[in-house]
Amino acid sequence: MALDLAQQSEPDEAQVTAAVEAVISAGRMAAARHWVPATSGNFSARIDAHRIAITRSGVDKGALEAADILIQPLDAPLLPRSSAEAPLHIALYRRRPELGAIFHVHGPASTVLSRGVGTGTLRLQGWELQKALAGITSHEEAVDVPVFANDQDTARLADLVEARLAAPPHDARLAPGYLLAGHGLYAWGASPREAARHLEALETLFEFELSYRRFTP
Amino acid sequence: MALDLAQQSEPDEAQVTAAVEAVISAGRMAAARHWVPATSGNFSARIDAHRIAITRSGVDKGALEAADILIQPLDAPLLPRSSAEAPLHIALYRRRPELGAIFHVHGPASTVLSRGVGTGTLRLQGWELQKALAGITSHEEAVDVPVFANDQDTARLADLVEARLAAPPHDARLAPGYLLAGHGLYAWGASPREAARHLEALETLFEFELSYRRFTP
Amino acid sequence: MALDLAQQSEPDEAQVTAAVEAVISAGRMAAARHWVPATSGNFSARIDAHRIAITRSGVDKGALEAADILIQPLDAPLLPRSSAEAPLHIALYRRRPELGAIFHVHGPASTVLSRGVGTGTLRLQGWELQKALAGITSHEEAVDVPVFANDQDTARLADLVEARLAAPPHDARLAPGYLLAGHGLYAWGASPREAARHLEALETLFEFELSYRRFTP
Amino acid sequence: MALDLAQQSEPDEAQVTAAVEAVISAGRMAAARHWVPATSGNFSARIDAHRIAITRSGVDKGALEAADILIQPLDAPLLPRSSAEAPLHIALYRRRPELGAIFHVHGPASTVLSRGVGTGTLRLQGWELQKALAGITSHEEAVDVPVFANDQDTARLADLVEARLAAPPHDARLAPGYLLAGHGLYAWGASPREAARHLEALETLFEFELSYRRFTP
Repeated sequence: MALDLAQQSEPDEAQVTAAVEAVISAGRMAAARHWVPATSGNFSARIDAHRIAITRSGVDKGALEAADILIQPLDAPLLPRSSAEAPLHIALYRRRPELGAIFHVHGPASTVLSRGVGTGTLRLQGWELQKALAGITSHEEAVDVPVFANDQDTARLADLVEARLAAPPHDARLAPGYLLAGHGLYAWGASPREAARHLEALETLFEFELSYRRFTP
Repeated sequence: MALDLAQQSEPDEAQVTAAVEAVISAGRMAAARHWVPATSGNFSARIDAHRIAITRSGVDKGALEAADILIQPLDAPLLPRSSAEAPLHIALYRRRPELGAIFHVHGPASTVLSRGVGTGTLRLQGWELQKALAGITSHEEAVDVPVFANDQDTARLADLVEARLAAPPHDARLAPGYLLAGHGLYAWGASPREAARHLEALETLFEFELSYRRFTP
Repeated sequence: MALDLAQQSEPDEAQVTAAVEAVISAGRMAAARHWVPATSGNFSARIDAHRIAITRSGVDKGALEAADILIQPLDAPLLPRSSAEAPLHIALYRRRPELGAIFHVHGPASTVLSRGVGTGTLRLQGWELQKALAGITSHEEAVDVPVFANDQDTARLADLVEARLAAPPHDARLAPGYLLAGHGLYAWGASPREAARHLEALETLFEFELSYRRFTP
Repeated sequence: MALDLAQQSEPDEAQVTAAVEAVISAGRMAAARHWVPATSGNFSARIDAHRIAITRSGVDKGALEAADILIQPLDAPLLPRSSAEAPLHIALYRRRPELGAIFHVHGPASTVLSRGVGTGTLRLQGWELQKALAGITSHEEAVDVPVFANDQDTARLADLVEARLAAPPHDARLAPGYLLAGHGLYAWGASPREAARHLEALETLFEFELSYRRFTP
């Protein structure tokens, strides 16, 4: 019996470790790009159907240690030291079992462009880099990024996000992420690797978009 | 007697070392961001109620050594090799016992934005990143950053700063820092860690602000 | 006989290794500049008259390993896991025996400028840096960079490229590269070293051009 | 006698080594900032009254080795493999015995701003960072940077530079450097350390100037 338990717990421990390491690695990547200034941003990865690993509040995302990552059950109250934005992560994991990781940054392009375009939708079209988003096969496809007004009430915001994701557009694909105006970008993927690819693709597409709108012939 | 003295001096020595190391570390961080070009900028940390550690004049802030840091009493004349801007640091430490560190940089956003907006006040509002400033809990709060005309007479400038900080606005919070037009940013905090967070938050908020003002729909 | 074969195969093996290492090194350089975001871009180097080394689809170009590089014969069908853009590389190597390497990136300046100017030609003139392009000896020479509409049908695109390169302008030199609008830059050279120099020169010239068009007196 | 010779040659050897190392170090710094793209730029340091160490043509300035540095006598013809711009260095060292180093870069701000303002003079005024230039003690002083039309005939250009430096303005200080329109920046100093400080100060001041001209209230 003791042996069986040990055998059971080992793979579980490995899943926890993998999720924690994925979060630490994503934070380091984003910090190197200056996308999480002044301890901003938060990062999570799914452990299994019931738990996620998520950064606690107020730490430098470029210097995360295992002790900075909370193991948060999806069906329990927020743990002490949770980020105020943890509910945005939890609501998405609950609703979408296929999500493996969610990364949130305050990159300059997503922060400024989201405030500039106003709430509603930012449509991306005509960029080859859109193909880095899962399921997009041509620069000609339209990709819609929802833009929400920023709100300190993250439970209320989570409801808005869910409602919007439940009503995808008919003439475009929804991006694997959304913008909060003047705040930043949430991006996700089936795995931490895919979430990181989506994060980099979206933040870079927003840089292109900002620069293109300033183009002078 | 000798033993007592040694016991007394050890904790004191540790405070000096901690302040010197905090200054060296802040200089290295700012240099990596290119915020202290061509030996510009200066950095200080409080040792105790009576002394600060502060960078001497004319050194590369990315390659500071302990010998580049002066141990300046707050009630004594400026030490030889002091920076011309040391009086701006000293006046703040004297007036505000809660300050643990003051960092000054010539970042591109603070230098250009301060000159662009002119002297008076730069109001920040609507950015989530404002919450990285101590005491700010919402992007909806207004945060005022005083902007002073640059002046080579830093004693005169220190008086202006003190007068302004003594008269906070009624409809906004004062930022933990101020701008000198065409010169750069002073930022402070209760500890070197908080001062570094405030410095990065403010310089990044100014980058957002500059970029947002250039936004083209 | 066995000895002879061994002697033959050794230099061949060295050529393969050199081409693979050149591709890995070019990918790392471009990734450090953020010119290949989110696994975008592709890189190839000629092994000999009949084969090239080329990055496979969907890998992070900043962390390439030998297993990510395909040894593609120029006269055979595409290998499994080939990039969708491999035909653009192969067509150029077939047509131009003097080409030693082709590097493709999604740099921000080439992506945005190519979309901004529209299809046709981007003429560079008046920049000293043009002299980093082989054969250009003065900033006064005009250098034409073809700009093609982006197309997911890369075989069709390869034909357009070949037709354009076969009809050089009378009053300008053709650049060692071309742009795909909203997509990025292809650059080549007689060797991997020259291709890397051309890539950096062109992407930087496009940065200059973008910034210059936004100049305000 | 042999001993005397050895004693004489040792300090001489040390001066050569110091100049070569200063050139290598300056090249590495500039390359890290992307100011010498695609093997552009050149760097020199004075050995003594009669000789300089100077980068040869066509090498990556971020990966200089001692073999890439020529020991050029000031009164002899150009050595084989000299840069086409070596005459601009030599003329300045001959005319100004106090110069210890000259560094030339193709930084984006100096390249674009120089083309934007046109030939004549770029006046800097109102930036605190001006004080990083030797002899400047206030942001209120005007600093004039000559801007010359680019010219592939560097001997002719050297004459123009000398004529301009011989006629300083009455109402401003001349900067320790000049711009070639659409080409880049030459900066110098009494020592390699001062030349590096002047180079960083000027390129950064041009970044400020470019950004400030684009400021939108």
